[in-house]
Amino acid sequence: MGRHRYKHSEKKVGASPGTLIYVGQEIDYKTKIRRILYNEATYVVENLKRLDSCGRPVADSPFVSWLNVDGIHEPAVVERIGQQYHLHSLLLEDVMNSQQKPKVEEYDGAYLFATLKMLHFNTTSQELENEHLSFVLGKNYLISFQEERKEDLFQPILGRIEASSGKTRRNGPDYLLYALMDLVVDHYFVVLDSIGEKLEILENSIIQQVAGQQTLTRLYTLKRELTLMRKVVWPVREMINRLILEDSDLIRPTTMPFLRDLYDHVVQVLDSIDSYRELATGLLDVYLSTLSNRMNSVMKTLTIFSAIFMPLTFIVGVYGMNFDNMPELHTRNGYFVVLGIMFILLVLMVIYFRRRRWF
Amino acid sequence: MGRHRYKHSEKKVGASPGTLIYVGQEIDYKTKIRRILYNEATYVVENLKRLDSCGRPVADSPFVSWLNVDGIHEPAVVERIGQQYHLHSLLLEDVMNSQQKPKVEEYDGAYLFATLKMLHFNTTSQELENEHLSFVLGKNYLISFQEERKEDLFQPILGRIEASSGKTRRNGPDYLLYALMDLVVDHYFVVLDSIGEKLEILENSIIQQVAGQQTLTRLYTLKRELTLMRKVVWPVREMINRLILEDSDLIRPTTMPFLRDLYDHVVQVLDSIDSYRELATGLLDVYLSTLSNRMNSVMKTLTIFSAIFMPLTFIVGVYGMNFDNMPELHTRNGYFVVLGIMFILLVLMVIYFRRRRWF
Amino acid sequence: MGRHRYKHSEKKVGASPGTLIYVGQEIDYKTKIRRILYNEATYVVENLKRLDSCGRPVADSPFVSWLNVDGIHEPAVVERIGQQYHLHSLLLEDVMNSQQKPKVEEYDGAYLFATLKMLHFNTTSQELENEHLSFVLGKNYLISFQEERKEDLFQPILGRIEASSGKTRRNGPDYLLYALMDLVVDHYFVVLDSIGEKLEILENSIIQQVAGQQTLTRLYTLKRELTLMRKVVWPVREMINRLILEDSDLIRPTTMPFLRDLYDHVVQVLDSIDSYRELATGLLDVYLSTLSNRMNSVMKTLTIFSAIFMPLTFIVGVYGMNFDNMPELHTRNGYFVVLGIMFILLVLMVIYFRRRRWF
Amino acid sequence: MGRHRYKHSEKKVGASPGTLIYVGQEIDYKTKIRRILYNEATYVVENLKRLDSCGRPVADSPFVSWLNVDGIHEPAVVERIGQQYHLHSLLLEDVMNSQQKPKVEEYDGAYLFATLKMLHFNTTSQELENEHLSFVLGKNYLISFQEERKEDLFQPILGRIEASSGKTRRNGPDYLLYALMDLVVDHYFVVLDSIGEKLEILENSIIQQVAGQQTLTRLYTLKRELTLMRKVVWPVREMINRLILEDSDLIRPTTMPFLRDLYDHVVQVLDSIDSYRELATGLLDVYLSTLSNRMNSVMKTLTIFSAIFMPLTFIVGVYGMNFDNMPELHTRNGYFVVLGIMFILLVLMVIYFRRRRWF
Amino acid sequence: MGRHRYKHSEKKVGASPGTLIYVGQEIDYKTKIRRILYNEATYVVENLKRLDSCGRPVADSPFVSWLNVDGIHEPAVVERIGQQYHLHSLLLEDVMNSQQKPKVEEYDGAYLFATLKMLHFNTTSQELENEHLSFVLGKNYLISFQEERKEDLFQPILGRIEASSGKTRRNGPDYLLYALMDLVVDHYFVVLDSIGEKLEILENSIIQQVAGQQTLTRLYTLKRELTLMRKVVWPVREMINRLILEDSDLIRPTTMPFLRDLYDHVVQVLDSIDSYRELATGLLDVYLSTLSNRMNSVMKTLTIFSAIFMPLTFIVGVYGMNFDNMPELHTRNGYFVVLGIMFILLVLMVIYFRRRRWF
Repeated sequence: MGRHRYKHSEKKVGASPGTLIYVGQEIDYKTKIRRILYNEATYVVENLKRLDSCGRPVADSPFVSWLNVDGIHEPAVVERIGQQYHLHSLLLEDVMNSQQKPKVEEYDGAYLFATLKMLHFNTTSQELENEHLSFVLGKNYLISFQEERKEDLFQPILGRIEASSGKTRRNGPDYLLYALMDLVVDHYFVVLDSIGEKLEILENSIIQQVAGQQTLTRLYTLKRELTLMRKVVWPVREMINRLILEDSDLIRPTTMPFLRDLYDHVVQVLDSIDSYRELATGLLDVYLSTLSNRMNSVMKTLTIFSAIFMPLTFIVGVYGMNFDNMPELHTRNGYFVVLGIMFILLVLMVIYFRRRRWF
Repeated sequence: MGRHRYKHSEKKVGASPGTLIYVGQEIDYKTKIRRILYNEATYVVENLKRLDSCGRPVADSPFVSWLNVDGIHEPAVVERIGQQYHLHSLLLEDVMNSQQKPKVEEYDGAYLFATLKMLHFNTTSQELENEHLSFVLGKNYLISFQEERKEDLFQPILGRIEASSGKTRRNGPDYLLYALMDLVVDHYFVVLDSIGEKLEILENSIIQQVAGQQTLTRLYTLKRELTLMRKVVWPVREMINRLILEDSDLIRPTTMPFLRDLYDHVVQVLDSIDSYRELATGLLDVYLSTLSNRMNSVMKTLTIFSAIFMPLTFIVGVYGMNFDNMPELHTRNGYFVVLGIMFILLVLMVIYFRRRRWF
Repeated sequence: MGRHRYKHSEKKVGASPGTLIYVGQEIDYKTKIRRILYNEATYVVENLKRLDSCGRPVADSPFVSWLNVDGIHEPAVVERIGQQYHLHSLLLEDVMNSQQKPKVEEYDGAYLFATLKMLHFNTTSQELENEHLSFVLGKNYLISFQEERKEDLFQPILGRIEASSGKTRRNGPDYLLYALMDLVVDHYFVVLDSIGEKLEILENSIIQQVAGQQTLTRLYTLKRELTLMRKVVWPVREMINRLILEDSDLIRPTTMPFLRDLYDHVVQVLDSIDSYRELATGLLDVYLSTLSNRMNSVMKTLTIFSAIFMPLTFIVGVYGMNFDNMPELHTRNGYFVVLGIMFILLVLMVIYFRRRRWF
Repeated sequence: MGRHRYKHSEKKVGASPGTLIYVGQEIDYKTKIRRILYNEATYVVENLKRLDSCGRPVADSPFVSWLNVDGIHEPAVVERIGQQYHLHSLLLEDVMNSQQKPKVEEYDGAYLFATLKMLHFNTTSQELENEHLSFVLGKNYLISFQEERKEDLFQPILGRIEASSGKTRRNGPDYLLYALMDLVVDHYFVVLDSIGEKLEILENSIIQQVAGQQTLTRLYTLKRELTLMRKVVWPVREMINRLILEDSDLIRPTTMPFLRDLYDHVVQVLDSIDSYRELATGLLDVYLSTLSNRMNSVMKTLTIFSAIFMPLTFIVGVYGMNFDNMPELHTRNGYFVVLGIMFILLVLMVIYFRRRRWF
Repeated sequence: MGRHRYKHSEKKVGASPGTLIYVGQEIDYKTKIRRILYNEATYVVENLKRLDSCGRPVADSPFVSWLNVDGIHEPAVVERIGQQYHLHSLLLEDVMNSQQKPKVEEYDGAYLFATLKMLHFNTTSQELENEHLSFVLGKNYLISFQEERKEDLFQPILGRIEASSGKTRRNGPDYLLYALMDLVVDHYFVVLDSIGEKLEILENSIIQQVAGQQTLTRLYTLKRELTLMRKVVWPVREMINRLILEDSDLIRPTTMPFLRDLYDHVVQVLDSIDSYRELATGLLDVYLSTLSNRMNSVMKTLTIFSAIFMPLTFIVGVYGMNFDNMPELHTRNGYFVVLGIMFILLVLMVIYFRRRRWF
């Protein structure tokens, strides 16, 4: 996002496919890699310093192995992990390409690749930002890739693993994948609520007619955010649907109801986005016709003033002429008669405009 | 709904899935539970005081057992019922989540879960409110969950069971489920009629040109209500369709024609919603161009006044100048000639604007 | 229709499904029942006075039996016919429910139920009205139900049976059903032509710029009629399509080409409705921008008058001041010089506005 | 088309289906019938004078027989041809009904019926007109029906047959059918180009801001033509698709690639129509906001004049008052001081409006 | 493109299908033909001077043969290549027809034909131009056709073949086809970025309210470019999808993941186009209501001036009348009293308009 909102991966033109290029913002931090090994009985958290030690768990490991990679901008790191887990080069390209659309793909039943976007409002610029997340699900491991940031996005899940011996601990890496994706979708609802609040403020200011040009710009920004959000969430729906339908061996049947539940939530997010867009469009119509109404009222004020004072000014102009022979000027009550006539004219005008409901 | 119209379940972010949290308004009342046992010959109504006594009926019970739970905000109660009927934890979560979209799901052929929304206008705020309803259909029982409120929503059905030995008494719990859903859809028609009346009032006020800013706000409110209604009713159509197509063992064949009839009604509701939306959009266009028309007429009035009095005021201004040498001022009939010229000018102007059909 | 255009079947809320309630306008007449027995050789028309005599024809009857029921507001009558022909209670409900959407349904291969809407303009109110028609097709009989009205809608078909020994007489009750539905669809074209003529009148008045507020209201009414018509005709398309696809035993193969032809006609009606709606929307755009154009022209007139006369009035005002020391006033040709300057100013203004193409 | 653009076949209401009625314009000419017999080696063109001689070719004829019927308004002629070729009565009705939508139908594998519309601009009225064409394809013959007109539409194809021993001569009647339909689709491109040129002219005049009310009417006419064209071409796409998919025995496999090519062309026509409609809508928006811009500029001119001259005129009015005691009037430089003040006021106003970028 | 933006292939009407006609711009250059033979070990580039030497490689050639034809306007050349590779005449027609829509077609499993459009902004006219590309994929060869231009479009791919012994060199002609199409899709992103930048500039100028008529024209141009781009890219999506689904023998399974990746990219392009179109429409709304707002503000300025100075000018006019008997004129402080009254009036007006928030 940032300064160039509408930017795609220009650098890549003509580059060989499968070439690892990070197309997001440049970051100085180093990639942090953490491995969590857990089963119902116990768990271990390791901060891995050396890339060699993040290898694939053995097939009959009694633990679920969760490798959380915090930072996707170092090709060497991603490539090394790819080698150790035997991942396809296009998959690694997708992990690093922060423009990649949400999708799910199974590679020969060996592992399953899923990618989607996190959404949150930047606390300083108040812009809606998205973060590129990728998951690789194997028989007994899950790798999660997230863009580098101050705080670990998946902390709540880690907390749950640490705290309880609950569902996450009792289940396999497929349930962990679900839990992480559920966290992301929960954040969609937070963003939706934030947008909903803004919409309500705009609605109030427009209906109570205190809206100005500022309001309009904010309405446009809101629509742009909804457009972006829809673009991000729409393929997530398709992706979860495919997870459910393709019935991969890597997803246990007990996890299926949870995925269906997740699917319902995503559909609900999309429904709300569509409703909000309709409401925003409706608000614009209200605002535009409020402007027309106000213009009408301004014009009426102008016309009333003109219609009253133009004839009166004309009359006093007539008796300001300097003709030698103007009999009325020399009558005794001429001045007062003219004042009276003008007053009657004023009253008639007022009655006329009141009849036409102009004020 | 209430103060924050656009609110989703923010509290849930990061919570473990399947955790029972009530996300609607907080209520102080206690949940009321009533069990109705009936067959063609007889019926019993019990108000259950203890949660232990609301257990699952025996498999060969001669009665249809209808457990009506009035209040979904106490997790303990819902969880207890869930245990006694062996219900899935996600199902219980859906029962309590008043934001849940309408859907139907069968759990291993053992029971069928259906949830949808009741719609009605709040009698005090005149806002369209929805109420979350859930049903669990077993072989010989039906559990209905509704949000806590003063009067029991399903009273008419209970009345029918009490009054007659009609269709409801002769049939199983699947027919009861149909009857309850039919009641909900009937209420959709009531809401639709109410919206239709409002639309007719707006139509009249706009076509007879007595509409103001107020009308516009009401038109927008109407559109918002239609958007909300569509969002609520649309998945009901899908849900009933699945009930028909999936051909569950829990639905007897004799109930099928009734479900098809219900489906027809829901489609009719959706058709009407779409028609109303189109009409509302059409009305807005009429209103906006009425505004333009009125503006035109105001501007014409202003222009006519200006075009007539500006030249006249200029003329009288000319003869109000104080030059020493202005021959016209000293002619005998100068004043009257000027008055005559101005009168002719006035007449020409009137003819000109009349020719251009300005009044 | 009538006074409350947007009315649904409010009375029915909570009523037991299958209860026969007539939800249209109350009518005082008695239902008229007529039976026409015919085959290629002969035909008989009977006005049935007693309900007992309208029973089902014997299986090997040499005649096609057409029972035409004129009036659907008397539950007793409809129920009695239902008993004699062993019709499902929901079917009878649909016959009486004038809000019922067009549809077709087969009941166990024994009989086929079809319902659709007649459309015509009310000759007095010029409103588009629809009439509820239902048909029950059996092996050797057809029952047609129509709303009570002065003249029998199906008279032309009866005339054809009486007049000729043509196709209708040679074929079975399925062809009769086709012929009756074809008559209804032919009336759709009549309504379409009427709407098309109105549209052409509106088009002319808008393009020749003689349109006023009245025109707009008429355009809105036209759009409302098209919306209503679409709502009525759209399900007819689906219904005939199902008749063709389901390949019922009650429809002879020789009748199929005729049904396909009918389907084509309905699609053509829908195409024309969509075209008309687009054209109506286009006309509204033209009208609105005509208003803008006119406003522009009015404003230009006003501005030209102001720009010319305001400076001139100011100049004459200057020389109307009463300062003791104003040298120009006492020059010999001062008056004429000022007149000349003002004339030059006028000419310059006229040239300026002409250059900007303001008139 | 002609005077009543929105006319359907009103005359037919209640007429027996299959009755041959010509619903187009009445024509005085006689139907012209021409038979072309050809194979790779030779060809014969006959102008048939008697209806008896246009009979079906024998099954083992060495020639492809093309019967070109020029005029579809004489029921007797069409019916006679129908008898000789054993055509279904509904087919003959479709041949004569110039309102018939494009479609294709196979009758028992014996012959195939296809109908579509020719489009061209009437050279005098510049209105888009369509012409009803029908084809009957048999094993070794093709019948083509066209509306009566001065020049034969299919002359280029006849020319090709006469000139070369090319593809048309080497192939069967199915290729001839393709060639004739290809000719029709080629004409769609001509019409499209003509519309495209008009659109380009409108685009230029609107962007260079020389557009007036006239332009708007032309834009509306263009949209109406695109609507009509879409209505005519849309079913052609469907029709050719069915020809390809249904894989009739009457269409040789070698003709298939040509039909697919034709299908591509029709899709391309539809794409272009949609693009043009979007562009036309975009142009309308540009035009409307040009109007608003112009209005703004007019209003600014007016306001600048008013804001400058109203205060000045007021000031000179003050010193035109006739009070006995007005000290300023009697100072020596009062007049020049007032002139100076007014000049400063003028300069300040000009600076103010320039700052607000009003000119 | 060029001068006549909306031009189709008019010249072709009535021409025999399969006739080779180049319908693009006339070009003087000669077609350049280059053959690249390569395998993992080695590669050869030949500039072919004689058409005879560009024949089909032998079936067991150890090389992949890439024939790159630069120029599609010489029928003789295209026809000659067609003969040597046994290509269908309609395929050759599609190669030369620069209006041809993107599509893919397999001919009897022998070869596969694909055509699509390159997009780029003309560096001088800044217009979006498309270039017609075609590919013929055989067992061990690929022919690529491009429109004649200064620089070879496919240079980067040739560079990759020359430089590395990478993926392109290790794979067959199907991978080469993918690589070439990937290059084209990469260019779509470049065009998209360019459009995105323009949109951002427009957005800034509209939101900061410095937009004029110019901005509007540019917004319209942008929308036209998006319309064109969508028309070009939409069928590419369909085309790649068919390549994936049809599972041709000519495409190796190892190339499939790359095609799926390409499909994702095209979908992403289409998503972005749709988002941009929505944003452009939203911007137009903002711009239009900015205009309305500005108009409102202009009108208010005018009305305030009129409402203040019209009454004041009237008052001074009253005391400019020349009646003999006007007592106020002769009082000692009359002049100052009137000045005071006018000042109070001014203050009241200012307060009134400030209360109504007019400034």
